[in-house]
Amino acid sequence: MDNFYAPGRHHLFVPGPVNIPEPVIRAMNRNNEDYRSPAIPAMTKTLLEDVKKIFKTTSGTPFLIPTTGTGAWESALTNTLSPGDRTISFLIGQFSLLWIDQQQRLKFDVDVVESDWGQGANLDILASKLAADTTHTIKAVCIVHNETATGVTNNLAAVRDILDHYRHPALFLVDGVSSICALDFRMDEWGIDVALTGSQKALSLPTGMGIVCASPKALEATKTAKSVRVFFDWNDYLKFYKMGTYWPYTPSIQLLYGLRAALDLLFEEGLDNVIARHSRLGKATRLAVEAWGLKNCTQKEEWVSNTVTAVVVPPYIDSSEIVRRGWKRYNLSLGLGLNKVAGRVFRIGHLGNVNELQLLGCLAGVEMILKDVGYPVKLGSGVAAACAYLQNNVPMIPSRI
Amino acid sequence: MDNFYAPGRHHLFVPGPVNIPEPVIRAMNRNNEDYRSPAIPAMTKTLLEDVKKIFKTTSGTPFLIPTTGTGAWESALTNTLSPGDRTISFLIGQFSLLWIDQQQRLKFDVDVVESDWGQGANLDILASKLAADTTHTIKAVCIVHNETATGVTNNLAAVRDILDHYRHPALFLVDGVSSICALDFRMDEWGIDVALTGSQKALSLPTGMGIVCASPKALEATKTAKSVRVFFDWNDYLKFYKMGTYWPYTPSIQLLYGLRAALDLLFEEGLDNVIARHSRLGKATRLAVEAWGLKNCTQKEEWVSNTVTAVVVPPYIDSSEIVRRGWKRYNLSLGLGLNKVAGRVFRIGHLGNVNELQLLGCLAGVEMILKDVGYPVKLGSGVAAACAYLQNNVPMIPSRI
Amino acid sequence: MDNFYAPGRHHLFVPGPVNIPEPVIRAMNRNNEDYRSPAIPAMTKTLLEDVKKIFKTTSGTPFLIPTTGTGAWESALTNTLSPGDRTISFLIGQFSLLWIDQQQRLKFDVDVVESDWGQGANLDILASKLAADTTHTIKAVCIVHNETATGVTNNLAAVRDILDHYRHPALFLVDGVSSICALDFRMDEWGIDVALTGSQKALSLPTGMGIVCASPKALEATKTAKSVRVFFDWNDYLKFYKMGTYWPYTPSIQLLYGLRAALDLLFEEGLDNVIARHSRLGKATRLAVEAWGLKNCTQKEEWVSNTVTAVVVPPYIDSSEIVRRGWKRYNLSLGLGLNKVAGRVFRIGHLGNVNELQLLGCLAGVEMILKDVGYPVKLGSGVAAACAYLQNNVPMIPSRI
Amino acid sequence: MDNFYAPGRHHLFVPGPVNIPEPVIRAMNRNNEDYRSPAIPAMTKTLLEDVKKIFKTTSGTPFLIPTTGTGAWESALTNTLSPGDRTISFLIGQFSLLWIDQQQRLKFDVDVVESDWGQGANLDILASKLAADTTHTIKAVCIVHNETATGVTNNLAAVRDILDHYRHPALFLVDGVSSICALDFRMDEWGIDVALTGSQKALSLPTGMGIVCASPKALEATKTAKSVRVFFDWNDYLKFYKMGTYWPYTPSIQLLYGLRAALDLLFEEGLDNVIARHSRLGKATRLAVEAWGLKNCTQKEEWVSNTVTAVVVPPYIDSSEIVRRGWKRYNLSLGLGLNKVAGRVFRIGHLGNVNELQLLGCLAGVEMILKDVGYPVKLGSGVAAACAYLQNNVPMIPSRI
Repeated sequence: MDNFYAPGRHHLFVPGPVNIPEPVIRAMNRNNEDYRSPAIPAMTKTLLEDVKKIFKTTSGTPFLIPTTGTGAWESALTNTLSPGDRTISFLIGQFSLLWIDQQQRLKFDVDVVESDWGQGANLDILASKLAADTTHTIKAVCIVHNETATGVTNNLAAVRDILDHYRHPALFLVDGVSSICALDFRMDEWGIDVALTGSQKALSLPTGMGIVCASPKALEATKTAKSVRVFFDWNDYLKFYKMGTYWPYTPSIQLLYGLRAALDLLFEEGLDNVIARHSRLGKATRLAVEAWGLKNCTQKEEWVSNTVTAVVVPPYIDSSEIVRRGWKRYNLSLGLGLNKVAGRVFRIGHLGNVNELQLLGCLAGVEMILKDVGYPVKLGSGVAAACAYLQNNVPMIPSRI
Repeated sequence: MDNFYAPGRHHLFVPGPVNIPEPVIRAMNRNNEDYRSPAIPAMTKTLLEDVKKIFKTTSGTPFLIPTTGTGAWESALTNTLSPGDRTISFLIGQFSLLWIDQQQRLKFDVDVVESDWGQGANLDILASKLAADTTHTIKAVCIVHNETATGVTNNLAAVRDILDHYRHPALFLVDGVSSICALDFRMDEWGIDVALTGSQKALSLPTGMGIVCASPKALEATKTAKSVRVFFDWNDYLKFYKMGTYWPYTPSIQLLYGLRAALDLLFEEGLDNVIARHSRLGKATRLAVEAWGLKNCTQKEEWVSNTVTAVVVPPYIDSSEIVRRGWKRYNLSLGLGLNKVAGRVFRIGHLGNVNELQLLGCLAGVEMILKDVGYPVKLGSGVAAACAYLQNNVPMIPSRI
Repeated sequence: MDNFYAPGRHHLFVPGPVNIPEPVIRAMNRNNEDYRSPAIPAMTKTLLEDVKKIFKTTSGTPFLIPTTGTGAWESALTNTLSPGDRTISFLIGQFSLLWIDQQQRLKFDVDVVESDWGQGANLDILASKLAADTTHTIKAVCIVHNETATGVTNNLAAVRDILDHYRHPALFLVDGVSSICALDFRMDEWGIDVALTGSQKALSLPTGMGIVCASPKALEATKTAKSVRVFFDWNDYLKFYKMGTYWPYTPSIQLLYGLRAALDLLFEEGLDNVIARHSRLGKATRLAVEAWGLKNCTQKEEWVSNTVTAVVVPPYIDSSEIVRRGWKRYNLSLGLGLNKVAGRVFRIGHLGNVNELQLLGCLAGVEMILKDVGYPVKLGSGVAAACAYLQNNVPMIPSRI
Repeated sequence: MDNFYAPGRHHLFVPGPVNIPEPVIRAMNRNNEDYRSPAIPAMTKTLLEDVKKIFKTTSGTPFLIPTTGTGAWESALTNTLSPGDRTISFLIGQFSLLWIDQQQRLKFDVDVVESDWGQGANLDILASKLAADTTHTIKAVCIVHNETATGVTNNLAAVRDILDHYRHPALFLVDGVSSICALDFRMDEWGIDVALTGSQKALSLPTGMGIVCASPKALEATKTAKSVRVFFDWNDYLKFYKMGTYWPYTPSIQLLYGLRAALDLLFEEGLDNVIARHSRLGKATRLAVEAWGLKNCTQKEEWVSNTVTAVVVPPYIDSSEIVRRGWKRYNLSLGLGLNKVAGRVFRIGHLGNVNELQLLGCLAGVEMILKDVGYPVKLGSGVAAACAYLQNNVPMIPSRI
């Protein structure tokens, strides 16, 4: 089990799964419990109430499903749509591609709006398609808030504006896997019908819980949605919610206690402070990339992501070698370039429970790796740029002032 | 979180989730890792190889799916069958009922063979149906090995014999949720096509991993199975198996290390010894029930279960009150009677990583509860009967001789 | 490390170290911290305040010393006495013997008052010695509250009465190692000058913290005490208390957090309830011993201990074999007979964070062992007697009503 | 308990207690056990054998004492010396000062050899004193291998050479608290009679175990040593070693398992590789300090320490403010300047289970703090210097090649 032992802490900078805070590891360090005892429903009740806050919704209904992000996607789609339904879906990177693939395999009629990898969703095309769709054949607009493969953040408020502008009734389904709890996210204000994330992303838990939130309109849609579903069926949950026992099947006791602790930490830090921290880490990373003379995969400032930065390497370098070397020499995990950007891009995840000095250690590591693989980086340059920004912007830790 | 605190160890005797051994809790007490680093595939490879041993298969292909038993069911069905396919499914208790419900909702044509709750599957009817099915309209025989609601163990070898007798090509799908790693289970010898369990049962892990094993015939069936599936699609796993990266989406790092530790403990004890231990605990429990003058819900000796005992209470007692009282007074969790046997039955789970003295503490607790609720039990009688048997049959602990 | 693996929970019934509650294990599951940061002094302050409650003192000064009970003894003696000082010390079992041995090696003039092992301290002799000591040559009366080797609890209030009766100024030094947090203990009311315990006893922590509390009179005595001491010198602590940094040398961060959690649990249960629980467990154990037809090593009811029961076996049985067999066959740890009672006595520890069903499991195990070693026990008899008492006396769990 | 919560990992860079590796935290995450069962002696035996390797001794006898470094000191002195014995002891910083204070309070006749704080032990004076001591009144030479307060490493081989040159029989007692397991240490080769360390230093465990190793000559000295001792008496250990039960009083079960894991990790990495890693980290830190334009407290290259670097700040800066700010703004713990160098020095601990990227994160943090407090550091300069060295010198991780 320690076949790959290396001294010191591992530096985990993939965009998920991310570092789990010690208090959460502690909270999960426990035996199983009977999920039918009074304790688990009592805790579940508070979790369902509190988890709504990370979606910024008061009207939504959350589901804590023992699955991954892929399962959360499937839950969002099958509960609200029927085979043959037309969806608009934006293809801008590997994760949006996989969601589209799922939509197609679930037999929807997917209208794919493609952009270059590194660009955001093309909302002009969305506008034109909605404008043309006077008979409302489009049943849902599906969008990945933050494309983890390219470090691109889409503008959800703009999507809502377009839907509103055309008074289009399509459902608005959002993958918030690498955004919720890290980027500004406003389910109610932006009129999102289904939003979802996975426990191992910005919530900083182990993998295993898909967290899905449905608007009243989405719940209404379940009544007509003909997609076959059992494990992912929200109605099974709703039935148990009504009974006050909450669980149609066995949840992970450990993840429930972990979620309780994770939410407590998020609220203790303050959600706005959490978002500001991600903003600082994202900005610092981009300044480092610039100082190294490298390009961000994200093509325009409006799309830059504060949870993951995809760095483009020069053609004479294989970005996979950078990732391999991080692991083999510096005990550092970086994200590979995926699919179209394989070999050309490596990714620095800076989401979840992570702080400035951790990031600076990672950036120093990246600098050494770049030198290792023959890129003429000036050692210290990225760290210097990041520090110059951070030293001006890191707030005092509120609990320690 | 400790809103329901009580001193001392909690006595967890529901038939799942069950007690996690300390070494497994320790193994899971860890941060996340990059599942794309070389470490996780290397470990996954050994897990997939070793997990076959708990199914007693060499030809099967295992899948470790981030889901629950319900999801494992869905995976077994949707990968091998098409909507409209005829299945034979035995209804003998709550869990077989739920599986049948799932089969119906997945649009199969379910031929339900019902027995009284407390009886095993009616294999005579199976025989007659197979005999009549000369055109092989029956595509699968679905059976729950151990019905957790009633403590009934079905005879899988007999099912195979009947299938063979009629040379029927139906797939043989088995829910081994409360049997695998605890009862005698022989996937290859009994010609089982899909077998499955959940991590929180006899494997003694947290909930969150559905462990499914498919025979070559089952894998062949995936090619024609038209059930819509994405998250549960085995082919996505097989694709990643071939690449050596193993995971189509993010697994729980903690559960992987936990599974490694759980398998190590099972092999250290020896699978045959594990099964013998469950046999001892089951027998001891039944002797206690008898000494109390109560009836086992299981109607015949041939069906008694070594993983869970469902105890029938006299009509003037509400079995739910027994469960409530266990929790409120003795820090003991027992299983409720479900559905048809609600109020009439309570259940003692004795599966997973549990030993004789733990069980005896539980039995002593049950005696006091029985007295509490007005049943004229002779205190000590059940423990005496169990001890008399155990004192003759418990082996020395091999590692300590 | 798992060279001695056995399935299920280990049943730990030695009178220390005792079972650690899960919330305490969790609280200690952490990295080190800088003990000079503001966090540790802030926590230490609350610990010192709260730890006084377990001694029932408001005027005492507590010290949390990184040592064991033996070190706590040494700290009590060397801070208050000078070589050559006359002490009265009661020899009633192995632990009082060891303390006397320490006193002698520390060069005090120890006046040993011996009783049969199984009897309490002979307070008549104390009275006569104090009466005779008109010139106050006796500097301290040293007594073990609960002799762990024989299960004998001494009457501390009576000691105080005798001291008061003779208006004798001797210091009153009490080993509360197996009593504090489990038996009624009143430092202020009984005029105890130094009381001490170890973390691994009724506080239910790991070993490593000697908890010592000194009365104002004891602190005054440090000014004239000439015993050489550095590591155990209270004045080094007092100096750091004044500075608000608290620690003259590095404490165990984990034990501090563990102590915080342990105290929280004790206060949540309520100290009086904790004592009542120990009383129940002690009584139940003694009833079982009686039902087995065996004798308690404690010779009179007035001395019976609610934290440990020493059971005398018939001459034809070697009590060590009972302990060995518990470990080798039933995964049960019992206490050996020590020194004078070696081979003749085995001990059941029932102190710390333990509950009724755990004890009943242990008692059932003891019955089987007794049978194993040839004692004609009626199986179930002890459990029956214990259950009969407990079923009438166990309260509902307050947090679950 | 999380009153001082800050997001992300805490950056612990005090020179003790240091970061505990995850596998060690896991190994310690456990319930208590009976230390008189066969399991603990069996483990203790391997620990005593293996712990000799970290001292590089085959002839020494180790003691694992439930105490801190201060207690380990006391154990070294009281077991080998008598009150009034003359010792030579070098005063070069706060920890050597404290040891001298202890020696004086234990009533030895301490011949203090003082140097400026920042210098190593004055071995010329040692030579002249030994030369003059033809009647061998000097019973022991006491030296701190690595003075943690000033980052000064003394030359132990040179001390041995001087002792040998004068054929002086004085005992050679060495505090290896911040050196053993991190710096080159050769007990047998250098003829050290007592060497000691604390668990929370380079062994990377929690505080609570003083690890002391005695040469045959030191054991011989116990026979005549008249210092009063009980808790720290080696003979009590030796008596139990002979019996094979090993423990005169209760050890911390958790620390034993932790030590087992810590030794396993050290041996897995290889002791020479561990020392080389500390050498790299020390060198990188010193290069950073130089790049910042600051001075190392250590006055000559021959004394530089690879486990802790004491950095001298300009007179217009209060070094305590640097430490405070690290904690309050960057979640970083640095070491304060102590006593004579209070306010003038801050310390970076780089010992124990720590790696390059962790250190670089710390160095980046120090740069920002320096800027915060008004020192005109060029941001990135220290990290650049460290990276330039490390990128050339960090080896590939052997387990991952």
